[in-house]
Amino acid sequence: MDERHVRRAVDLARHGAGTTSPNPVVGCVVVAADGAVVGEGWHERAGGPHAEVNALTAAGGRAAGGTAYVTLEPCNHRGRTGPCVEALLAAGIRRVVYAVDDPGAVQGGGAGRLRAAGVDVRGGVLAAEAERGNEAWLTSARRGRPHVLWKFAATLDGRSAAADGTSRWISSPASRAQVHDLRRRVDAIVAGSGTVLSDDPHLTARSPDGALQGRQPLRVVLDRRGRVPTTARVLDDAAPTLVSTAASPAELLQELHSRAVVSVLLEGGPTLAGAFLAAGLVDRVVAYVAPALLGQGPSALGPAGVGTIAEAVRLDVDEVEVVGGDVRLSGRPVR
Amino acid sequence: MDERHVRRAVDLARHGAGTTSPNPVVGCVVVAADGAVVGEGWHERAGGPHAEVNALTAAGGRAAGGTAYVTLEPCNHRGRTGPCVEALLAAGIRRVVYAVDDPGAVQGGGAGRLRAAGVDVRGGVLAAEAERGNEAWLTSARRGRPHVLWKFAATLDGRSAAADGTSRWISSPASRAQVHDLRRRVDAIVAGSGTVLSDDPHLTARSPDGALQGRQPLRVVLDRRGRVPTTARVLDDAAPTLVSTAASPAELLQELHSRAVVSVLLEGGPTLAGAFLAAGLVDRVVAYVAPALLGQGPSALGPAGVGTIAEAVRLDVDEVEVVGGDVRLSGRPVR
Repeated sequence: MDERHVRRAVDLARHGAGTTSPNPVVGCVVVAADGAVVGEGWHERAGGPHAEVNALTAAGGRAAGGTAYVTLEPCNHRGRTGPCVEALLAAGIRRVVYAVDDPGAVQGGGAGRLRAAGVDVRGGVLAAEAERGNEAWLTSARRGRPHVLWKFAATLDGRSAAADGTSRWISSPASRAQVHDLRRRVDAIVAGSGTVLSDDPHLTARSPDGALQGRQPLRVVLDRRGRVPTTARVLDDAAPTLVSTAASPAELLQELHSRAVVSVLLEGGPTLAGAFLAAGLVDRVVAYVAPALLGQGPSALGPAGVGTIAEAVRLDVDEVEVVGGDVRLSGRPVR
Repeated sequence: MDERHVRRAVDLARHGAGTTSPNPVVGCVVVAADGAVVGEGWHERAGGPHAEVNALTAAGGRAAGGTAYVTLEPCNHRGRTGPCVEALLAAGIRRVVYAVDDPGAVQGGGAGRLRAAGVDVRGGVLAAEAERGNEAWLTSARRGRPHVLWKFAATLDGRSAAADGTSRWISSPASRAQVHDLRRRVDAIVAGSGTVLSDDPHLTARSPDGALQGRQPLRVVLDRRGRVPTTARVLDDAAPTLVSTAASPAELLQELHSRAVVSVLLEGGPTLAGAFLAAGLVDRVVAYVAPALLGQGPSALGPAGVGTIAEAVRLDVDEVEVVGGDVRLSGRPVR
């Protein structure tokens, strides 16, 4: 029974996907003492009410004596909105079931505070399912750096362009539309100066007709040697841009973490991707494999610190789908 | 109604997959004048009875006045078994429905002979479905050379080995087992001298424990410069081996065609695969893409005559499946 309500809360949480950063997505279901579902809610955007508050508001007086099912341990800190723990106690909730422990040092302790107040608390229910929806936020909270997703498109033989450098278009229109969706859901897009010099990308989220569409992430160019010209498209005013001279991927991520960047989309070139992989700083890989062969041309990935087959970066793949003829694989490097 | 019976014949034909070479797979359903299915049959192996004869034998006297549904135009030549056209006429069949025209010069003319004898003949029913099962045989008959299937395994970044040359194992045990199945179904396996020198492969069909299993194809090594040593494993007595000094893929295929090789599995290295692709002599590509990244090491495919993205060899993919964690793609180059 607990599982069923938490699963519903996980579904509710998804409504916030892509709009809550730098907050996590959270869903909540309030069930009255007689077992009736009396309130549902989710967190929609930073600054707006938390999932628990929305669900408690919907439940009104029927929450008293009931149970709250939440995808994340309720917060115990006073941010832009009051702490959820206090709202749960004020509503007379007697039992709290949640999926994932809150890893944050500042926010932690919600479960302990509830227990101290006499509430029956159960954590860890459907934790794996709930983790997936908050992968970026949890990585940021646990590791103290942004979550890094490396996206690339390549042919079946692993090339990102032909011998003469041409690459439009290796992947299908449907795959490219997905990438624009992905851009809208991250806080920053990172490219290296090499990619900027060779491809002059715009690094914005656009509709199929090329118009800017939706939330635009911070554009980040790693340009240690000051090679990027002021005329580069990435420096226009379509979205904010950070030109970083960080000496390493780890240093760049610290810089972005200090700017409250929770999620990073790595789009730039084989050299940069190799450096991030070699440093163990890629949390998820999304590959669009086009059913085409080139035989020559640059590889999608450059040296990544792998010298022998036993050192290969293996992915724990959790998604495989055909997108407009391409095969999309998504997975996390096995550490 | 015709479609339903032809589809059943296509299913029956599959029973012969892998055992009929150099003959095609064929299935046949005999339906009596009252609509009852009275006989089914398929071709099992070269030298054995044809599908029509098996189905007519099952039908016995009930075939008279009925219809025969066949996946391939009935043969009109006297080979090791009598021509099927005569058997159909002798059984009193009044109507023949078939899927694919017989492209063979020697075997052709079955439909014409039947019509001349007053039989109602309809061809081309479910031709595409039936073609797939006889892809190799039809290619051989139409093009006068063996069907070429290029199989390769690579990482997501298109590499077939690590920087130090190690490659065991890039693909999963389930993928490797499929490759041994594939070897049992072809007439010949082709590798280049480079692969023989670097990997010393056995090029046999084996069970997971390494023992030889089932039909062993002809092993073919393209070794123009006589580089392969007599100690190479491919020269042992586990299966016949042909060392060819052909100057080109086309010349090699002519040599194999003259030896009644209908289907070839190309397993050898990036150089040989590139040469076959550049010559337009690959009929199907089967790729096992492992969810791993290497960043360095040899590419699965070398120069294939593609200079710019518009010249990329695009595949018309008809099969995508996950095999033991790898993604298997199968498709035909678009010409």
